[in-house]
Amino acid sequence: MIIVLKPKATPESAERLLKRISDAGLQPLHMPGSERVVLGALGDERVLAELALDGDPDVESVKPILAPYKLVSRELHAHDTIVRIGGVAIGGSSLVVIAGPCAVETPAQMRASAMAARKGGATILRAGAYKPRTSPYGFSGHGPAGLSILREVGDELGMPVVTEVMDTAEVDLVAEHADALQIGARNMHNFALLRAVGRSGKPVLLKRGLSARIEEWLLAAEYLLASGNDQVVLCERGIRTFETATRNTLDLNAIPYIKQRTHLPVIVDPSHGTGIRELVTPMALAAVACGADGIMVEVHENPAAALSDGAQSLYPAQFETLMKALAPVAQAVGRKL
Amino acid sequence: MIIVLKPKATPESAERLLKRISDAGLQPLHMPGSERVVLGALGDERVLAELALDGDPDVESVKPILAPYKLVSRELHAHDTIVRIGGVAIGGSSLVVIAGPCAVETPAQMRASAMAARKGGATILRAGAYKPRTSPYGFSGHGPAGLSILREVGDELGMPVVTEVMDTAEVDLVAEHADALQIGARNMHNFALLRAVGRSGKPVLLKRGLSARIEEWLLAAEYLLASGNDQVVLCERGIRTFETATRNTLDLNAIPYIKQRTHLPVIVDPSHGTGIRELVTPMALAAVACGADGIMVEVHENPAAALSDGAQSLYPAQFETLMKALAPVAQAVGRKL
Amino acid sequence: MIIVLKPKATPESAERLLKRISDAGLQPLHMPGSERVVLGALGDERVLAELALDGDPDVESVKPILAPYKLVSRELHAHDTIVRIGGVAIGGSSLVVIAGPCAVETPAQMRASAMAARKGGATILRAGAYKPRTSPYGFSGHGPAGLSILREVGDELGMPVVTEVMDTAEVDLVAEHADALQIGARNMHNFALLRAVGRSGKPVLLKRGLSARIEEWLLAAEYLLASGNDQVVLCERGIRTFETATRNTLDLNAIPYIKQRTHLPVIVDPSHGTGIRELVTPMALAAVACGADGIMVEVHENPAAALSDGAQSLYPAQFETLMKALAPVAQAVGRKL
Amino acid sequence: MIIVLKPKATPESAERLLKRISDAGLQPLHMPGSERVVLGALGDERVLAELALDGDPDVESVKPILAPYKLVSRELHAHDTIVRIGGVAIGGSSLVVIAGPCAVETPAQMRASAMAARKGGATILRAGAYKPRTSPYGFSGHGPAGLSILREVGDELGMPVVTEVMDTAEVDLVAEHADALQIGARNMHNFALLRAVGRSGKPVLLKRGLSARIEEWLLAAEYLLASGNDQVVLCERGIRTFETATRNTLDLNAIPYIKQRTHLPVIVDPSHGTGIRELVTPMALAAVACGADGIMVEVHENPAAALSDGAQSLYPAQFETLMKALAPVAQAVGRKL
Repeated sequence: MIIVLKPKATPESAERLLKRISDAGLQPLHMPGSERVVLGALGDERVLAELALDGDPDVESVKPILAPYKLVSRELHAHDTIVRIGGVAIGGSSLVVIAGPCAVETPAQMRASAMAARKGGATILRAGAYKPRTSPYGFSGHGPAGLSILREVGDELGMPVVTEVMDTAEVDLVAEHADALQIGARNMHNFALLRAVGRSGKPVLLKRGLSARIEEWLLAAEYLLASGNDQVVLCERGIRTFETATRNTLDLNAIPYIKQRTHLPVIVDPSHGTGIRELVTPMALAAVACGADGIMVEVHENPAAALSDGAQSLYPAQFETLMKALAPVAQAVGRKL
Repeated sequence: MIIVLKPKATPESAERLLKRISDAGLQPLHMPGSERVVLGALGDERVLAELALDGDPDVESVKPILAPYKLVSRELHAHDTIVRIGGVAIGGSSLVVIAGPCAVETPAQMRASAMAARKGGATILRAGAYKPRTSPYGFSGHGPAGLSILREVGDELGMPVVTEVMDTAEVDLVAEHADALQIGARNMHNFALLRAVGRSGKPVLLKRGLSARIEEWLLAAEYLLASGNDQVVLCERGIRTFETATRNTLDLNAIPYIKQRTHLPVIVDPSHGTGIRELVTPMALAAVACGADGIMVEVHENPAAALSDGAQSLYPAQFETLMKALAPVAQAVGRKL
Repeated sequence: MIIVLKPKATPESAERLLKRISDAGLQPLHMPGSERVVLGALGDERVLAELALDGDPDVESVKPILAPYKLVSRELHAHDTIVRIGGVAIGGSSLVVIAGPCAVETPAQMRASAMAARKGGATILRAGAYKPRTSPYGFSGHGPAGLSILREVGDELGMPVVTEVMDTAEVDLVAEHADALQIGARNMHNFALLRAVGRSGKPVLLKRGLSARIEEWLLAAEYLLASGNDQVVLCERGIRTFETATRNTLDLNAIPYIKQRTHLPVIVDPSHGTGIRELVTPMALAAVACGADGIMVEVHENPAAALSDGAQSLYPAQFETLMKALAPVAQAVGRKL
Repeated sequence: MIIVLKPKATPESAERLLKRISDAGLQPLHMPGSERVVLGALGDERVLAELALDGDPDVESVKPILAPYKLVSRELHAHDTIVRIGGVAIGGSSLVVIAGPCAVETPAQMRASAMAARKGGATILRAGAYKPRTSPYGFSGHGPAGLSILREVGDELGMPVVTEVMDTAEVDLVAEHADALQIGARNMHNFALLRAVGRSGKPVLLKRGLSARIEEWLLAAEYLLASGNDQVVLCERGIRTFETATRNTLDLNAIPYIKQRTHLPVIVDPSHGTGIRELVTPMALAAVACGADGIMVEVHENPAAALSDGAQSLYPAQFETLMKALAPVAQAVGRKL
């Protein structure tokens, strides 16, 4: 429920109304604007109706939030949210480029890959210390040791770092080392993890699940916001379809659809979205053309020797080519790189 | 099988080899290049092997075509094919924009919609006289009368026209009226129609089937080329997935994937690809950014009154906005509008 | 619209009402029952409303048909339709078993395969003279010669035959030779073919499209019934999903779903539904257990030498095993083999 | 790698070989059979090759395990595994029926629903204390209090209980209260949870992920076995496809496919697999007909008042009808209820 107060409503009116909402067992939201104060109330629709807030003398109008997601909706929060990871802003006029290898393998590999990422123009570093692997016999990351290497390299190069967390038991540890926590596609519906990461207060990169409808993805983001964390960046990384030529089907329709309905920034991962190195650059360009707030790309100093995802990782020179091709497209849609 | 002749090979050698191929019951192909003559042989792999062409004194090398599609493959035909519809070239440095209403409704509606398309900058006109409809009770087009209206309006405005043909029995009639024949998504696997349209000699717009893998789509194009028609434009229009927020999932991955593997032009239909008017412009931009040779867009003088597909049809003013937004993106990727 | 007449309504009343419906440009339906006469009216809902039939003195009640499909709906036609192919009834208490090779290859292969089918207990023979093939270079059937062989073998063994028709231009020829016409998965949305087959008056086996929703499949059947042909058997043959272990995903949910909503018989093709010979028998049993009116199975005298679909064709001995396993399951659900 | 020892090989030979495998950093497996001793070695294929076990005098043959899954494969373990939950055996000639409400709501609701389940013939009780909900505002279960109620009712009625665990932090607590732990569809790729549940030693019910290929599902089971837990029951519960008429598409192809390739028992959940109460009974019959080792069904004393999944929950009388219909089908395929 969105409650718009009358122009004459005082701060005391707002406080009084928020208390009524809260006393009824609902979640109150305070959204002061430049011209009007807007309040929100989340919870059981029947209880909301019983409050009869539209009869209150300080209330101008009351309207329901139609979408099943509330806090992430533009209906409740009209302006774009800017998420800050380290010193980098995501969601404004500048595009963000997050790059790095799939996994932290060795200090040397991490450093060389990070330097390639920074040289190309990336401003945030990515790499996994905990890797979700379909088979229990695959390389599943170096864990805490990997986190330390990533942190060290990030500090050395002055780049904030984002890395995946896969278990509630590891949220604190990962949060100590990283500037932002990634929730991977396979954990988008791991609700315990969503709540734990939400409570951590760290910026979050929330990837879309392999078979998640857009609405379900936004509801996963709603879990994070409902846990008190609004520093959420959505990341489209391809969905699972019948097509086998590419690893996944990158659903770029989702970008303008989401930008029109929510205030959260959305970026695109063309590496997982295609699974094929040669498709990464054209799809990065397409992502920016349709309104993405940035891209996340796998770059490895030597993809042929990568322990995971080598086929979709860019060589350093390819990443530079991508960035050069991206700049004029960014400009064409009024964004900066 | 691709047969590269030695530099010294004479036209008579080529002729002699083509005759051997043909006498063995295989399809011979003649591809003279600036430096070398290349021959092709299509058919039963065992017969091909028995010919033992690699032992011929005029043959430098013989290599198999690995993809299941042959004539559409870049392996056999390295350079981009330019398809000409009326006077408009598709597949070169200039992007093509095909626009018009979903269906021919009335002469007035057709004329007004076509004028909006031309004013915005479209160079080819589209509209359906035969409409595939899920329900037998839906509006299925005006048939021959619709074809006449479309032809007349196209001539009036100096725009070549493309329209769908749904039955082998109607290929001749539609070919008389249209500059190019469209094979719709629901008929991509209608092999009798593919063969009939292939034989017609008219340029073809081949839409991807709702659940066609890229390889199957290219094999449908192979049917057209194998029937003697190489004037084929592929059109991505979205695939069917579990996502219900959008009508289809526009698979832009397919664009660079296909451009790298075939010589045929590929365009994108963001109207069917999204099913939502507000998503058409961003997805048109994305299509061009990732390498599409053009777009096909539904524009209606008054979408609210359209007999079909109103929700995804652009208002004239929206189409103009699209075209203005598209120009800088085209330039950013080195294409002209 | 379903119009239930009052018990006192005379045949003249019914005729008068049918004329009113017809005069309004709507399609009238006459469904005399043992206790009441029920009429139907199909067409534009607004015209239907204007008729105000509920105010007629002979009319007891008028109710809309909620489903988008009308003639195939149980709302309009409560009792099971029995379709007759040759002397074989489909849709009653006896299950139908249709078997035979994928394609007519030679008279000897056809005869041997048909004898295996009959020996196992099949009562209808299947084989393709026109084969839809993804590649233009695949074996696409012997056409008219294949039809003759099939007819001859069917007559010899006293089995009615069903075979696929792929083009409106071939409907008459195929109808001359076959007892029932099959519309294949790739042509389920070939509306011209649906109309032509509907008008042929021959019993039809309508396969579900690879990515057709159940509602779309029933609307394809509606095309047939709306063309005057109610001898329609639906055939579930698997849908396309992300799963690659099996050729298709057999959607048995569709069987009870459809049986509850329509009056048409539904059978299952576990050969295409799985694509793996070893899965055919268990899935045939499952099909019957959940209510299918029969099965269609590929049986070949020598699958290892089959020109198409060998991997999913049963050896004669396997087909006998299937039939022996099927009998007790049929009995368990109150059906006869 | 599977290592078959010669008949003359002594226990000491086996021990010696296991030590060699172990010393090379590989996982050794000991599988004594009635006629031969078979050993297994899991790990890096190159290290395995270097061991050159086929040259050992006590070794008869060495063969690779082709499937990516090893411990769950019939290649390594030919006989059916029987899993025991409380006193109930799953995987033998008797079918298991697990029933109960979606969620533990109140002691009275739980008791009444459990009595309905037992009366119908269920031998294991199910109900959720932790519920995965798409929206953060949905009822997510009573947690520890729910576990206590479930345990109490199970003890009262003499039924072992199975319930879902969603977080590694809760594995111990849930394991204290339940006889078997369920890993839900949304957590099938939660690898941390798989490992933790594997180490718990409790029997596990592993549901298939919404978009998990069969191979991925079996690799998730491999995680459990690789953690030392072979008490694993697989549960097919429907996959996500383009079909919207049913909540999911129940993939019964998976049942015979898996039974042929693995030794683990597989059951089917037709409640989630269809999402529609009226389809539960026919699909339960189909599941058993194609070889499932049992079913899991949602039964609620009053589905209309259920806090979750009411539309797919059976009324007590419907469950009794299901069980009566199931008995003859079970018998038809040689199983007991």
